[in-house]
Amino acid sequence: MRRLIMLAALAALPPSLTWAQPADHGIDHLEPPSWWTGMRSPQLELMVHGPRIAELEPALHYPGVRIAQVTRTSNDNYMFIQLNITPGTLPGKLTLQFRQHGKTVLSHPYTLQARAAGSAERIGFGGADAIYEVMPDRYANGDPANDNTPGMTERANRQDGSGRHGGDLAGMAAHLDYVAAMGYTMLWPTPLLEANMQQGSYHGYASTNHYRIDPRYGSNEQYRDFVAQARTRGIGVIQDVVLNHIGDRHWWMRDLPSEDWITHQGKFVPTQHHRVAVQDPYGSQADRRDFTQGWFVDTMPDLNQANPHLATYLMQNSIWWIEYAGLAGLRVDTYSYSDSAFLSAWSARIMGEYPKLNLVGEEWSPHIPIVARWQEGKRNFDGYASHMPGMMDFPLNDTLRRALASDDADGAQYSLTSLYETLSQDYLYADPGKMVLFEGNHDLPRIYSDLHEDDALFRMAMAYVLTAPRIPQFYAGTEVLMTSTTGRRDDASYRRDFPGGWAGDTVNAFTGAGLTPRQLAAQAFLKKLLNWRKGQPVIHHGKTMQFGPEQNTYVFFRYDGARKVMVAFNKNHSDTTLATARFQEMLAGVHGGDDVISGQHYALGDTLTLPARSVLVLALR
Amino acid sequence: MRRLIMLAALAALPPSLTWAQPADHGIDHLEPPSWWTGMRSPQLELMVHGPRIAELEPALHYPGVRIAQVTRTSNDNYMFIQLNITPGTLPGKLTLQFRQHGKTVLSHPYTLQARAAGSAERIGFGGADAIYEVMPDRYANGDPANDNTPGMTERANRQDGSGRHGGDLAGMAAHLDYVAAMGYTMLWPTPLLEANMQQGSYHGYASTNHYRIDPRYGSNEQYRDFVAQARTRGIGVIQDVVLNHIGDRHWWMRDLPSEDWITHQGKFVPTQHHRVAVQDPYGSQADRRDFTQGWFVDTMPDLNQANPHLATYLMQNSIWWIEYAGLAGLRVDTYSYSDSAFLSAWSARIMGEYPKLNLVGEEWSPHIPIVARWQEGKRNFDGYASHMPGMMDFPLNDTLRRALASDDADGAQYSLTSLYETLSQDYLYADPGKMVLFEGNHDLPRIYSDLHEDDALFRMAMAYVLTAPRIPQFYAGTEVLMTSTTGRRDDASYRRDFPGGWAGDTVNAFTGAGLTPRQLAAQAFLKKLLNWRKGQPVIHHGKTMQFGPEQNTYVFFRYDGARKVMVAFNKNHSDTTLATARFQEMLAGVHGGDDVISGQHYALGDTLTLPARSVLVLALR
Repeated sequence: MRRLIMLAALAALPPSLTWAQPADHGIDHLEPPSWWTGMRSPQLELMVHGPRIAELEPALHYPGVRIAQVTRTSNDNYMFIQLNITPGTLPGKLTLQFRQHGKTVLSHPYTLQARAAGSAERIGFGGADAIYEVMPDRYANGDPANDNTPGMTERANRQDGSGRHGGDLAGMAAHLDYVAAMGYTMLWPTPLLEANMQQGSYHGYASTNHYRIDPRYGSNEQYRDFVAQARTRGIGVIQDVVLNHIGDRHWWMRDLPSEDWITHQGKFVPTQHHRVAVQDPYGSQADRRDFTQGWFVDTMPDLNQANPHLATYLMQNSIWWIEYAGLAGLRVDTYSYSDSAFLSAWSARIMGEYPKLNLVGEEWSPHIPIVARWQEGKRNFDGYASHMPGMMDFPLNDTLRRALASDDADGAQYSLTSLYETLSQDYLYADPGKMVLFEGNHDLPRIYSDLHEDDALFRMAMAYVLTAPRIPQFYAGTEVLMTSTTGRRDDASYRRDFPGGWAGDTVNAFTGAGLTPRQLAAQAFLKKLLNWRKGQPVIHHGKTMQFGPEQNTYVFFRYDGARKVMVAFNKNHSDTTLATARFQEMLAGVHGGDDVISGQHYALGDTLTLPARSVLVLALR
Repeated sequence: MRRLIMLAALAALPPSLTWAQPADHGIDHLEPPSWWTGMRSPQLELMVHGPRIAELEPALHYPGVRIAQVTRTSNDNYMFIQLNITPGTLPGKLTLQFRQHGKTVLSHPYTLQARAAGSAERIGFGGADAIYEVMPDRYANGDPANDNTPGMTERANRQDGSGRHGGDLAGMAAHLDYVAAMGYTMLWPTPLLEANMQQGSYHGYASTNHYRIDPRYGSNEQYRDFVAQARTRGIGVIQDVVLNHIGDRHWWMRDLPSEDWITHQGKFVPTQHHRVAVQDPYGSQADRRDFTQGWFVDTMPDLNQANPHLATYLMQNSIWWIEYAGLAGLRVDTYSYSDSAFLSAWSARIMGEYPKLNLVGEEWSPHIPIVARWQEGKRNFDGYASHMPGMMDFPLNDTLRRALASDDADGAQYSLTSLYETLSQDYLYADPGKMVLFEGNHDLPRIYSDLHEDDALFRMAMAYVLTAPRIPQFYAGTEVLMTSTTGRRDDASYRRDFPGGWAGDTVNAFTGAGLTPRQLAAQAFLKKLLNWRKGQPVIHHGKTMQFGPEQNTYVFFRYDGARKVMVAFNKNHSDTTLATARFQEMLAGVHGGDDVISGQHYALGDTLTLPARSVLVLALR
C-alpha cells in the first residue's frame, strides 16, 4: 500500500526536489484494519503509522462517523485518530483522507462491517465445557508447504526441541473430528499471531504483529475458517492473548510510537518476578515497578499499558479478533505482569462488549488469595476491582499433583487431605465455578510424569479435573500419557510433538496406531468421561459436598436436587470399605450408583467397598 | 465439707432409718468456689454437686445479691443457681442455704471478694512482649517433695519420656531471674490444673479439676504467688486453657451433670481432625459434628459446649483464674475443636470483662485463611464472628522453617521467597500484629533440628521472629539449641528436660555451666536481641516494608517516622553485595546502620555487602 502511494506522489514532484526532501508521506500501518458498526462503545481509535504522517490532518465523510480527536506523539510518524461511530450507523466503506495545506496528500479506504448475528450475546466457555490446549506448532503439520514462508526468519527444524516443527492451522483443522470425538468442546491454541523472531518463534508468546496470523500457521482467513469449522463440530475457540509484552522484532520496535510505549524507555531491564508486589500491603513501589515494567528476556520488550493509546490499542485488538474470528473466549498470558489499572479497564471493556463471553487469566501462584484477587467480584483489601470472569486454578493444579504424587507416609506434607483443604477455601474466590482447573499446560511437567507414570493416579487426576466444581482444561497429549522430565524447567520436554501429527509418525494418537495398551486405555478413559460429562448439568453447575479424607480415601458429591454424583478416590493398594452412614446427608433415598467409567453398578447399603487404587464416579439413583 | 454435714445429719436420724434412706443430702462441689463484686456481668452461675441436691431449694440473704433462676438437670445430684449481683454490691461473705420442706438442710459459705485495683483494665501481652513457653514438668524441679503427692495417681519417673519428671511452680519461680535476664516478658506455662490421669499427666492437657492447681506443681496459692513474683520482674503470665476436653478422671465423669455434658453421650468416638469442616462451604454436617464432637483419645472426653451451663461454667472458670491469679492473658488449646458458637461467646465474654487483655488461640493449619477466620474483626464469608484478639501463626512458622531449611536448589518448592509471599498475605488477617509468631512449641520438632543444626539458619530464624510484625514466642530450650527427632511425631523428643532444672544436672542452661560454645553463643544471641527489642517501639508496632528476595537474600524494614530498622538475610555461602538504590523508599536520608547483633556499623552507600550466611539487624541513622 505505502509503496504505491509513494510512487504516485513521487511522479508529481519536480525532479530537483525528489531527493532533497525527507521521505514522502505514506501509510505503513493503519490499525485496526477494519471495524464494525453496532458495537457497544461508539469509539474507535485508529493508529496510523507512516513517514511524517503527523504533519497531515485527517478527514472523512461518512454518515454517523466523525473524527472526535486527533492525537500526535513525539514521533512524527504516528497519529492516533479517535472516531465516534453513532449508534445506528450503517456498515459500508469510507475513505480516510490525510490533508496538508488544504490538499489531500493520502487517502486510505476503511471498512465498517456488519456484525455477525448474536455477536454481542455470544456465550463463552463455561462449566459445561472441557478445554483442550494445543500448541499449534507441535500438534499437526497439515500443510508442509507453509513450514517456511518468505519473510519469516526462523526455519523449521523438527530435530530442535526449541525450534519450529511445522504444525499449523491446517493440521488442527484436519483433526477437529478427533477433538470432537474425544469430547472436548473448546480449543485453546497457544498464540497464532505472527512471531517473526529469530529463535523460539514456535511458542508464539513473542508476537511481532497484532493483526496477522503467522503465515507458517496460515492466513487470517484460514484462522477464521478454522474457527468456523470447529464451531460446526460444537467446539469453540479460545484465543491466547499476550498483553504484557511483544517480540523485539515487532514492527513497533523499529519506530516506537512514543518514548513510553515500551517500559524502561525501550531498554532491557529484567523483571525479578516478585508477583505479589502488586498486592502486598508491605510492598515497595520499587518492586511494583520491577514486576510490571521489567522484561522477561531481552527479546521480549515489555509494554507500558499506562500509555492510554497503547491501552486502547490492546483493547481494540482483543475485540477485533473476537469479532473477526468468532471466538468463544480469551486466555490471557502472564496476567498480573501488566499494569493493574489497565487490566481492570481491559477486562471491563471486553466484558462490556461481550457480557456473556468468558476470559481466563494466568496467575502462576500456588496461593489461592494471590490468584483470587483477579476475579470479578472479589472484594480486595485495597479496593482493587477486576473484571476477569475467571483465572487459571494454579493452586488446585499444584495441590492435585502433590496430593496424588505423595507417598502418604506418616507426616507427609501432602495427601488427599491437601486436596480437600484446598477446595474448602473456595470461598476465597468470588466465583469458584468459573475458575479453570487444568491438569497441565505447556509450562509444566507432564502430569503423568509427575504422577510417577502411575496409571491409577493418572485416572484419579483426570476424574478429579472432570468432576470438580470447575471448568476443566487438558493439555494435548495428556490423553496418550505423554511424558516429560520433572525436575528443573524443560520446555522442550513439555512441548514434544503430538504423535501422529506428522506424515511418517510411527505412532498416531489420532488413529490409535502404534499406541500401547496403556495409552489406548488412558485415551478411552478420558474419552468416556469427557463425553459423559457433556450431558451432566449436575457437574456443570451443581452444588458440591465433600467429606474429609479418611483411610486414604476421599469422597465428594456433586448434586442438584435429585441428581447426584458421588466421586470416591482410594489411594490404598487394597480394597477399602467405607461405612456409608457418614454420607447420609447425600445418600438418603439412594440405593446405588452406576460407575460412569466401568459401567458397574454399586449397591449402597451400609458399606461401600472402593477397589484398590481407584476412582469411582457413581451416578446415584 | 460434705462428710461433716452428713455426719451431723446422721446423728439426728432414728437408727432404723439410717440405712434404708438413700444417701443424705450434701455438697461435694460448689463452683466457682468464690467470686468478685464489681464484675461487668452481674450474673454468676453456681454449679452445685452433691447427693440429691436437686431436691433442695437454695436461698440466700445478702444486700444486692439475689437468686435469679435455679436449673435442675436429669441428674438429681446437680443444681445450677444463677445469681444476680447488682452493681455496687459490697464484697463480703454470704451463706447459701439449701432448704427442704421449709427447713435448711445444708448451708454453704460463699465469698464475694473485692477485685484488685485495675483488674478490668489490665493490659495483656502485646507487640512489645516476647513470650517464653515452658512445660512446667520439664523445666525445673524446685521442690522434689511434691513430685508425688497423696491422691495423685501417676508417680514421677524421669526415665520415662512420657512420664512425670517433677518440674513444678517452685522450679519456675526459682528461675524467674533467668527468664527476665534473657529478655522474655511473658511466660506461658502449659496447663497447671490438676491432671490426675493414670498416664501422660505431665502435659496437663487432660484436666481433672478446673479449680485446682495440680499438687505436684504446687497449690493454688503458690500459683498466685508465682504470678505475683513474675510480675515484680516485669513478666506476665499467660494461662493455658483447654476448652475442648477434659481428662477421663475428671470428677464429672463419675457423675455427669447431664447426658449432654460430654459429646456422644459420654462414649468415646474419635475425631478425624477434619478441621476445615467447620469453615468449608462444601462441608457436611457429619464432618462438622465429627470435628467438634469427636474425642482426641478415649481418655479425653470431649466437652459439649452447646450445653449452656457448661458454656457458662467454662467462661466463669477462665475469668476466675484471670482474676484469682492476676493473669496477663490466655492461650487456648485446640481452639477450633470446640463448638464455634460457644467460642464466639466465650471470647466475647472474656474480652467484655477485660477489654485490654489478650488471648491467643491454637489453630494448627498451614493455611492462612483457615487461621485468619478466628481473629476478631475478620469478615468471614458465612458471617461468623470471633472475638479472639489473636491466634498462633502456624502458617508463618511452617513457612519460616521450610524456607530456611530449603537447599534453595533450582525449582525448590520453598525459599526465602516463600517467607516473603506468606507475609504479603497479611491482609487476610484482621490484625496481623496481634498474631503470635512462634519459633517452636511443645508439639513440634525443635527448630534447631529442623534447620539441620545450622547455627546461621538458627540465627536467621530467631532474628525473623523477633523483628517480624508479630508478637514473638519462644519455646524453652530453644535458646540453648535443644534438639529433637524431626520425622514422625515424637512428643518425648520435643519435651526433654530443660538442662539445669534438676539437682545433679551436669549441664545447666541457667548458669551456663557445661554448655558448649555454640549453645552459649545462641543463648547470648537471643538474649541480646530480646533485650534490644524491649526498647524498640518501631518493632512493637511500626510499619513494615519488604522487598522480594533476590540473589538468595531477603530484606525488610520496620519503620515508624524517622525510626527505621533494616533486617537483611543472606543464605548464600559467600558475601553478597546488594545495590541500595532499590531500597531508596526506605533509605532516603539514611547514612548507615548499626548491627544490633554485632555492634558493627555498616555504611549505606551505593551498595551493602551482606556477610555469608548471616542476618543483619541494622538500626538505621
